[in-house]
Amino acid sequence: MLDTVFQNKKALITGGLGFIGSNLARRLIDLGAEVLLVDSLIPEYGGNLFNIDDVRDRVRVNISDVRDEHSMRYLVQGQDYLFNLAGQTSHLDSMHDPYTDLEINCRSQLSILEACRKYNPDIQIVFASTRQLYGKPDYLPVDEKHLVRPVDVNGINKMAGEWYHILYNNVYGIRACALRLTNTYGPRMRVKDARQTFLGIWVRLLVEEKPFEVWGGEQLRDFTYVDDAVDALLLAATHPDAKGQVFNLGGDRVVSLKETADLLIEANGGGEYVIREFPAERKRIDIGDYYCDDRLIRSMLGWEPKVPLQEGLARTIAYYRQHLDRYL
Amino acid sequence: MLDTVFQNKKALITGGLGFIGSNLARRLIDLGAEVLLVDSLIPEYGGNLFNIDDVRDRVRVNISDVRDEHSMRYLVQGQDYLFNLAGQTSHLDSMHDPYTDLEINCRSQLSILEACRKYNPDIQIVFASTRQLYGKPDYLPVDEKHLVRPVDVNGINKMAGEWYHILYNNVYGIRACALRLTNTYGPRMRVKDARQTFLGIWVRLLVEEKPFEVWGGEQLRDFTYVDDAVDALLLAATHPDAKGQVFNLGGDRVVSLKETADLLIEANGGGEYVIREFPAERKRIDIGDYYCDDRLIRSMLGWEPKVPLQEGLARTIAYYRQHLDRYL
Repeated sequence: MLDTVFQNKKALITGGLGFIGSNLARRLIDLGAEVLLVDSLIPEYGGNLFNIDDVRDRVRVNISDVRDEHSMRYLVQGQDYLFNLAGQTSHLDSMHDPYTDLEINCRSQLSILEACRKYNPDIQIVFASTRQLYGKPDYLPVDEKHLVRPVDVNGINKMAGEWYHILYNNVYGIRACALRLTNTYGPRMRVKDARQTFLGIWVRLLVEEKPFEVWGGEQLRDFTYVDDAVDALLLAATHPDAKGQVFNLGGDRVVSLKETADLLIEANGGGEYVIREFPAERKRIDIGDYYCDDRLIRSMLGWEPKVPLQEGLARTIAYYRQHLDRYL
Repeated sequence: MLDTVFQNKKALITGGLGFIGSNLARRLIDLGAEVLLVDSLIPEYGGNLFNIDDVRDRVRVNISDVRDEHSMRYLVQGQDYLFNLAGQTSHLDSMHDPYTDLEINCRSQLSILEACRKYNPDIQIVFASTRQLYGKPDYLPVDEKHLVRPVDVNGINKMAGEWYHILYNNVYGIRACALRLTNTYGPRMRVKDARQTFLGIWVRLLVEEKPFEVWGGEQLRDFTYVDDAVDALLLAATHPDAKGQVFNLGGDRVVSLKETADLLIEANGGGEYVIREFPAERKRIDIGDYYCDDRLIRSMLGWEPKVPLQEGLARTIAYYRQHLDRYL
């Protein structure tokens, strides 16, 4: 179905120059969609023009911030799909500056939804939510019935943003659903620092032939390769049963941080890391082990991960060995 | 314990000229506290200077809005307790103007907590949350482990506001807890319209000798008499086990709306109502039957309701038969 459904359709991606947004854009172009990317290019976030370097003449780019109600009001008009990926993602930044996180992750979501309600109620929306909503799990794997209990301001605000989408679906019939993403990784992720994912800084240091730090090491995690996340976004946008739903998205396996580090070094053909204690400031917003039960999206939308972790890590390392300088 | 613990203590109440705030103020005065009431007196909300008419010379009143970061930053300083009751409470208003609800119920809560963190980290806070977070219940009675799934913007924003409090408790050690209130009723509630509670407009019309409307009639609800809610707020502020907790607050019994209407007419010694279909705009944010399991606050804090529904309704009617003109 995905082969034809996006043909000549208009798709808007907020955060479109970012990691997941730019990978999604590339796929949508291949599927024949007219793609419009909105991004603020704030240096601390994930947007990077190099992410679309090879497809630049096949997409439209509009630099604006989702906090800019006026531009968003205009830009949602006439779109068939909205992949709403723009967000402040740093847990630590959300604690240091809770207001900015609130403006981006709550208020802007409301204003985007209001714009859709007023000017384009037939749009179909997929919102990128986060497993951070669950906080420290009561049980593993975490399914969608697990209580939400965020441990940082970012988790609280993303929770509100997610619920605005579900609410506008339920009350106003604006078709919307949400994916609760876990650690997504792959080419075009931010590697300058650990703001987007700790894997980013690991990859950077490894490619730079420096040792990287693993905090703790025993914690269990799941990872989604970005192409698999893109599959999930496309399925969620088009499957009629998806509307109003919230889906966990996981990966092909559960691994410890230490094992992930070992796999990454193997993919790189060498390198080293040191195990360090969790810094106090991070420790108090850490969630311990996490991995999800994603049977709902597998059974309802037919999603499954296609790229095994080791293969995904190898592709990631290969990408940054070639392009690291464009990400620093 | 409550007899002595507030003696010469400083207590700040946001929304202090409102329904619950003013009843709480009166009790705190009797317990020997120095009480500071903050209220915006926005006409559509619950604040009313007449609510403190009989104790006006025994409290300090500061007119300001919780959205005013500057005044709040100053006012929290030196306080021993903060009863954080100010909020936008209308479900329907939150759908028509989601931004105002966001500013009051999310952003202001963050700025109050930031002010406490920076200028008064030893304060003890009780936040007035709402059963609206649960949305349409999966099961009854609803305990605190029930998933939160708000059905209107107000529920989403109150959820965020509640979680900021729990987060600041857990991460920064600012002692805070939350009570999820159900229908609280009694003297000094807003009766001009149904913005605060449907019981308000019922009481007004009954006292004015006009028929009132009961929408549906079969829905089950629980009610808390305001003096019992005040007990709960005081216990939550002072009990060491309360910090970081979220408590449901219920009442002495479960009743249908129709039965509630009958009890109210009995308390009034006459009057009439008509059963009407739920208006469409309300129907889509209605939650059906709701009543809570409040065993947690009963067992942990020793709270129990002391005023039976019929007695509470009789006191309420008596109050408005005397003072209705001050509430129109």
